[in-house]
Amino acid sequence: MRTQVGIIGAGPAGLFLSHLLKAQGIESVILEARSRPYVEGRVRAGVLEPGTIETLERLGLDARMRREGLVDEGLDMRFRGRTIHLDLPGLTGRSVMIYGQQEVVKDLIAARVEAGDPLVFEAAVTRIEGIETDRPRIHYTEGGPEGGTDKVLECDFVAGCDGYHGAGRAAMPADVLQVFEQAYDFAWLGVLARARPMADMTYTNSDRGFALCSRRSMQVSRLYLQVPADTDPSSWSDDRFWDELHARMFDEGRTEIEEGEIFQRDLAKLRAFVAAPMQHGRLFLAGDAVHIVPPAGAKGLNMAVADVRVLSRALTGFYRSGSHAELDAYSTVCVERAWRVVRFSSTLTGLLHRFDHHTPMQRNLQLAELEYIAGSHHAQASIAEQYVLLNHLPDYP
Amino acid sequence: MRTQVGIIGAGPAGLFLSHLLKAQGIESVILEARSRPYVEGRVRAGVLEPGTIETLERLGLDARMRREGLVDEGLDMRFRGRTIHLDLPGLTGRSVMIYGQQEVVKDLIAARVEAGDPLVFEAAVTRIEGIETDRPRIHYTEGGPEGGTDKVLECDFVAGCDGYHGAGRAAMPADVLQVFEQAYDFAWLGVLARARPMADMTYTNSDRGFALCSRRSMQVSRLYLQVPADTDPSSWSDDRFWDELHARMFDEGRTEIEEGEIFQRDLAKLRAFVAAPMQHGRLFLAGDAVHIVPPAGAKGLNMAVADVRVLSRALTGFYRSGSHAELDAYSTVCVERAWRVVRFSSTLTGLLHRFDHHTPMQRNLQLAELEYIAGSHHAQASIAEQYVLLNHLPDYP
Repeated sequence: MRTQVGIIGAGPAGLFLSHLLKAQGIESVILEARSRPYVEGRVRAGVLEPGTIETLERLGLDARMRREGLVDEGLDMRFRGRTIHLDLPGLTGRSVMIYGQQEVVKDLIAARVEAGDPLVFEAAVTRIEGIETDRPRIHYTEGGPEGGTDKVLECDFVAGCDGYHGAGRAAMPADVLQVFEQAYDFAWLGVLARARPMADMTYTNSDRGFALCSRRSMQVSRLYLQVPADTDPSSWSDDRFWDELHARMFDEGRTEIEEGEIFQRDLAKLRAFVAAPMQHGRLFLAGDAVHIVPPAGAKGLNMAVADVRVLSRALTGFYRSGSHAELDAYSTVCVERAWRVVRFSSTLTGLLHRFDHHTPMQRNLQLAELEYIAGSHHAQASIAEQYVLLNHLPDYP
Repeated sequence: MRTQVGIIGAGPAGLFLSHLLKAQGIESVILEARSRPYVEGRVRAGVLEPGTIETLERLGLDARMRREGLVDEGLDMRFRGRTIHLDLPGLTGRSVMIYGQQEVVKDLIAARVEAGDPLVFEAAVTRIEGIETDRPRIHYTEGGPEGGTDKVLECDFVAGCDGYHGAGRAAMPADVLQVFEQAYDFAWLGVLARARPMADMTYTNSDRGFALCSRRSMQVSRLYLQVPADTDPSSWSDDRFWDELHARMFDEGRTEIEEGEIFQRDLAKLRAFVAAPMQHGRLFLAGDAVHIVPPAGAKGLNMAVADVRVLSRALTGFYRSGSHAELDAYSTVCVERAWRVVRFSSTLTGLLHRFDHHTPMQRNLQLAELEYIAGSHHAQASIAEQYVLLNHLPDYP
């Protein structure tokens, strides 16, 4: 098989890239290691920045999001029983959209499949060769690990959009790549519950730990609790979860947060990770393959979309005029933004969680930071602009 | 001897308190362990917030400051050779004043001595008793440690304005006081040099460590370098100091920073410290006795002045109407502000210094924070408002 851009991974980065390239008349093939139901079922964050919303719009893939998504105009942070309310349109002129990442993924897959464009599921990449030549080759096994068929995709460029554990980054020469990483010793226990959600996305910093109440729809709440990293999600009964959530949210009368059947539980480990450069020869990396944010702030999807918007414009420039200029600048352009996004997510994480290693002084300084934010327009506007616009790329498709 | 308010310490907190009380017709006696030349010669920070400037004004003690002080409208932060310029009046509507703390101290001492109000130097407090009664007594030795005379000052209230190592905090019952403390493993080597200073207060974060260029007058520069905590200031020759300062300030042509004779060297250890409550019975603590900030942001003097402005109004309320209400609230009112100030100073310290324990990731996140600030009006305004107005107390004398 032969294509212009060989894309590894059918997550947001790979899918957006394929659609952005198609809009410019550039062919691509997506190779995805997992099955379609698996990919469509992965529950992730669900906050779309304006840049992501507009990209969906320009691709003509925003119909269901417009119908089913919830415009989110508020971000609340609680501490000591008080609430800091960030009025996003008032502070930034923009709002965000609540629409689950897996819903975006479903829409992009459906559009690609309907158009008959190549998207191969259960295609596990085994080797990427020739990234320093003009004809890189992606070796993969199609049809699952057992009894699959070995195949090769020949292409002009390889886009590694296959996440933290993917083959893309692994194909970078070790002496080229710099890796920065920070692990956290706690995780997020996330649940989906059939319960009317609170009106605003609400983060809380309590002595018992962090919690987050968010919406998936008007009928489904997406709720999180900070838990030890080795937690077994099934060890949290519904009752235990609700008790803890009310307590951390300072919902003392248990009247504010509606309870309902918990029908999904997952555990997300927290990690901050940046690898650079994001390119070598004809291999370009995007999204989780090169940078992971802790989930506070919901930046993962938006950062990935921003990466491939930069990459698609660079590839378009190459195919239109043969120019390498934007391709050569890809990593430089994206890495600086990635550091800002990782920094914001890390700062928000630091502001809102309970850290076992904190001294009483550090805990008091953390609460004093929240006190200051509660009284400062500029501090609130600073958080709001980062929450809404950190991946803003007005000059990109 | 008998007075209404016995003040221990002739630093800014004690001196301002005595003048604020006198303006309300309340008598006080200041006991200062050191000699007048020693107290007047202590070189400290020299940035006055508007609240401090206005207090001097209302006391009629601002004449020399108006004449010799320098209005400072800019705060610059450098990193990677770039400069973030904070236009203080543009961002906050206010500016700060450059006027050395020891000059303020000289002015306040001179006014008190001239008025013939009691200010006893070389009066070392040995014991404070009866703080839970209406007649506390301060025992002290007058005339130096050798051959001094033991005396007692009887008063209605004791104000412990005698710094971190003073007798004031030591007189608090141990089971009452909560103490929070954080030490840093580096220090500031400060010098005074006969050299025309740079126009703006300029902080820098370089790979070689932090540095700060500030003004004492149009002819004298006050300059600082981050150094290991165990540094001997005399080990830094003039040449070595200037070489390092140029390098950290990205002054590559050595044309921007003017050199001159270094005539004073000192080492300031960095510490963040908060003790609470700030009162017990008839004993009230203010300034460094109960909270110490790391020097970035120059908050120490301003925080002390804010404390005694609150305390003087509370004491005035008591002597006017017998009301204990404001006295009882003193610690609560001041401690919250103290945490905000300590937090700001700690955050600025964290943003600008090189930390040996930083991983490469943490170093990159620190630089990414500066990158974000460089591009954000709100982030700049947030720093500026804290630099200028964090101790703002519009309703106090």
